[in-house]
Amino acid sequence: MFIASVKNTTSSLIAEALLEVQAVKLSPEKPFRWASGWKSPIYCDNRITLSYPKVRTLIKEKLVELIQLQFPSVSCIAGVATAGIPQGALVADLMELPFLYVRSSPKSHGMQNLIEGIADKNAKIVVIEDLISTGGSSLKAAEALRQAGYNVLGMAAVFTYNFQVAVDNFQTADLPFYALSNYDDLIQSALEKGIVKPNIIETLQAWRLSPQTWKQ
Amino acid sequence: MFIASVKNTTSSLIAEALLEVQAVKLSPEKPFRWASGWKSPIYCDNRITLSYPKVRTLIKEKLVELIQLQFPSVSCIAGVATAGIPQGALVADLMELPFLYVRSSPKSHGMQNLIEGIADKNAKIVVIEDLISTGGSSLKAAEALRQAGYNVLGMAAVFTYNFQVAVDNFQTADLPFYALSNYDDLIQSALEKGIVKPNIIETLQAWRLSPQTWKQ
Repeated sequence: MFIASVKNTTSSLIAEALLEVQAVKLSPEKPFRWASGWKSPIYCDNRITLSYPKVRTLIKEKLVELIQLQFPSVSCIAGVATAGIPQGALVADLMELPFLYVRSSPKSHGMQNLIEGIADKNAKIVVIEDLISTGGSSLKAAEALRQAGYNVLGMAAVFTYNFQVAVDNFQTADLPFYALSNYDDLIQSALEKGIVKPNIIETLQAWRLSPQTWKQ
Repeated sequence: MFIASVKNTTSSLIAEALLEVQAVKLSPEKPFRWASGWKSPIYCDNRITLSYPKVRTLIKEKLVELIQLQFPSVSCIAGVATAGIPQGALVADLMELPFLYVRSSPKSHGMQNLIEGIADKNAKIVVIEDLISTGGSSLKAAEALRQAGYNVLGMAAVFTYNFQVAVDNFQTADLPFYALSNYDDLIQSALEKGIVKPNIIETLQAWRLSPQTWKQ
């Protein structure tokens, strides 16, 4: 119970920080429209946290705590381009570990690399991502690292929407993943802070369970 | 003279570090071919330094020294995507300043931002770049920041090829720029370390003066 309580504290702390700097915006009445076509009551841009040194440092320290707890044998940090690069570099810096980053597609010129930087062939890599929705781009990055012969221990993200499809995708890929905070804890924090009203909780929960059909 | 000597020491130190981890490769006999079509005796990939914590930290600390000396009123750090993002974030972290990053073209989905992250409208921004060749992409990033209303103090880069065209471009844009190390000091370090032979110096210098015609 103690551990569960500690975990919960971190998740609430991060959720509150994301809401405070408006890295996460909730707008259930006037939904956002995602590139996928989904309507969504939430828009998350964790890059905004980089502009707030205190929040940025909190996220860095909590990611390092998570990695030390879940992946104690880590020897290298990788960031998923582009949003995972800055926090990934900060985590690598604090842990004094090598850093590399992974693109989702090769750049159009120069030496065509999906992976930028190099690591020891025996490196045990933890991948840093800012945000998990379906897990697609994160798993693509992890797959690129595996195909290059690296041992990928798992993934640490700042935030996940808690979609079942992401859980399934990571399970299929046999890749452990952890996030500092998540949609359900965020709603709870938003409710406690009066950012959303209790009568809107049901529709917020409905989105998480079936984002592709919500308000269509 | 003392300052000139200190500057020179930093430049040699960085040049040696770049050569040591092979972030810079010299191959005058079998030239590289750049995306521009130019043949070149040098290939520079400073992202490799991210995989070497000691070199990465050296670069971070020297960039911070440079910024504190040349741009003491700085209040925000920006990185040019993608290679300037990780070192930019590390510099912002050490200086406890807000960080944002700038793309050269907007991403294809989501809220179309050239600039990721936010800064105070009165922010005094120093832009971090890994490598200066003609200065084109760096100046595009600085221009995007200026068009968004930010005050761009100048640019700090890890390495410059010392092309006259870059000097001219930065002068035209009225943007001060400094680099930790440069092609001429690198050649000198490579010579001292026996990486290149004295009889090759002339052809290496010829490239820097006229890269577009060298060995064509």
